Amino acid sequence: MKPPHRDPLARARLLTSPSVGPAVVRELERITGRPAGPTRTTGPDGPFVYVGDALPEALRTPELLWFHSVNAGTDALLAAGPWPEGALLTRTVGRMGERIAQYTLAWVLAECQSVPEHTAQHSRSTWRRLPSELAAGRTAVVHGTGHIGSAVAGLLRACSLRTVGVSRSPRTLPAVFDRVVAAGSPEEAAALAEARWVVSTLPLTAATGHFFDEARFTAMRGATFLNVGRGATVDMAALEAALRDGTVRRAVLDVLPDEPAGPGDRAWRLPHTVITSHSAGITADEDVVTDFATCWDAVAEGRTPELAVDTRRGY
Amino acid sequence: MKPPHRDPLARARLLTSPSVGPAVVRELERITGRPAGPTRTTGPDGPFVYVGDALPEALRTPELLWFHSVNAGTDALLAAGPWPEGALLTRTVGRMGERIAQYTLAWVLAECQSVPEHTAQHSRSTWRRLPSELAAGRTAVVHGTGHIGSAVAGLLRACSLRTVGVSRSPRTLPAVFDRVVAAGSPEEAAALAEARWVVSTLPLTAATGHFFDEARFTAMRGATFLNVGRGATVDMAALEAALRDGTVRRAVLDVLPDEPAGPGDRAWRLPHTVITSHSAGITADEDVVTDFATCWDAVAEGRTPELAVDTRRGY
Repeated sequence: MKPPHRDPLARARLLTSPSVGPAVVRELERITGRPAGPTRTTGPDGPFVYVGDALPEALRTPELLWFHSVNAGTDALLAAGPWPEGALLTRTVGRMGERIAQYTLAWVLAECQSVPEHTAQHSRSTWRRLPSELAAGRTAVVHGTGHIGSAVAGLLRACSLRTVGVSRSPRTLPAVFDRVVAAGSPEEAAALAEARWVVSTLPLTAATGHFFDEARFTAMRGATFLNVGRGATVDMAALEAALRDGTVRRAVLDVLPDEPAGPGDRAWRLPHTVITSHSAGITADEDVVTDFATCWDAVAEGRTPELAVDTRRGY
Repeated sequence: MKPPHRDPLARARLLTSPSVGPAVVRELERITGRPAGPTRTTGPDGPFVYVGDALPEALRTPELLWFHSVNAGTDALLAAGPWPEGALLTRTVGRMGERIAQYTLAWVLAECQSVPEHTAQHSRSTWRRLPSELAAGRTAVVHGTGHIGSAVAGLLRACSLRTVGVSRSPRTLPAVFDRVVAAGSPEEAAALAEARWVVSTLPLTAATGHFFDEARFTAMRGATFLNVGRGATVDMAALEAALRDGTVRRAVLDVLPDEPAGPGDRAWRLPHTVITSHSAGITADEDVVTDFATCWDAVAEGRTPELAVDTRRGY
């Protein structure tokens, strides 16, 4: 994934999708030193850079030098059609690692302190001491040891949880993990059995569909499962069976295979589950501007931005 | 507060209150090397050590060498009558600092992640992204810089919050606080104005009744107030007014001036408030045994235990 050549970039037009608000557009114009063109339904003549959430079919042309996604996940973008040959794809991560880590810790501790139960009890004007559980010293297994998984593990470890990372390609051990095991290994199964929490940060790729299957869910011994990655990495029927059997104690699902879930969606009726409407890793306007500017600087210097997506691997 | 002399302690009887369960009694017998006597309604002849939650009037005699409280708070015990001259008072702290710190962080993050709102929304099968707020970088003011306050600040700081301690007798700065200010100083008022969260860990003493009064609540600028100390340190009418005016955004009250609160208690109707039935700092059986054993070792060596209470100051 090489950065665009400087000459075409210098004369490239800047286009933005309708979802990008005027304040962000102004910042993009300032960074690139050119006016943003209106959204097009046909590709412009000559090279262009596009900033947005989705790439219209008409813009999937060889003239696309660079697409900057305002989101972190690019699976829907890549699944919508073949990626234009040679076009750079970058994404907005922003403070997403921090946000998803805080989401995870909040739900871990909400469970430990019976936050939903206290709230319900308060609404009934009932004074009754409820149980609590110390998270410190318990084990959290975190699937995915990249940017998001490391941020999650780092925050859990700051609160004295033991952290086990699961990686599909274990390399060096990020310091936020007490240990890292290989996906599919006997060590992963042992970690799942020991886990009080299992947190998935996995992206959706060709390799991760239904990654959380019957084998993984039945390897758990009462862990609570949190999914802050992608919904389609979970076999929902297997999760439902595990929740009924108790090998999974509770589930906190920020993502579902089909989003948004309609009122009749079966997912709402999973036992011991809370669904949080894809709210964990929001992207703020300032995140888009900051990350685009960082990518722009890298490209201007002929470097591949760190936020570039490998369009074959999918992340 | 000096430890009892060894000779009387060697021949002292061991008595326990009815609230102390048989498993704990067995451990106390093992530690002290003597049988535990039955609960008495009259003081025994000769010196005795008492382990329990309350001290019956008949046992407030000069023969009481040492009372070990199974709780951390000893205000009710000291308020119930004059403390027998020379009797050692020790208390159970256990992992209370850790427990109260986790409680505090759980409710801070539950607010940031809209945990109660997500739970309610789930029950209506509604998919809607809800706002979140990053706690990192925000300021938490913690009243009380002792064991509990330091544990709270330490955990909040591990999650990148800025921590300001408020102390009635500022001495050295515990490392868990970014700074410590004096109660009643202009610096405290400035800290309250800056605070996103105000956490009270204050004990109830002659000096702390209605410590949180109109002046303190109106000095806040939309902070959420958490009380994990004692209910009577709060002027509830002033809190209610501040909640209505918005100088206090929300309240999370683990303690109330009158506990337990009956269903008709006005506290249940405070706006933007959750009451959690004195569940933050529970004492487990193992905490009582561990802390009593530590005190016993100190006393046997002629030292004053670190868990000794200054019966004049009240903590």
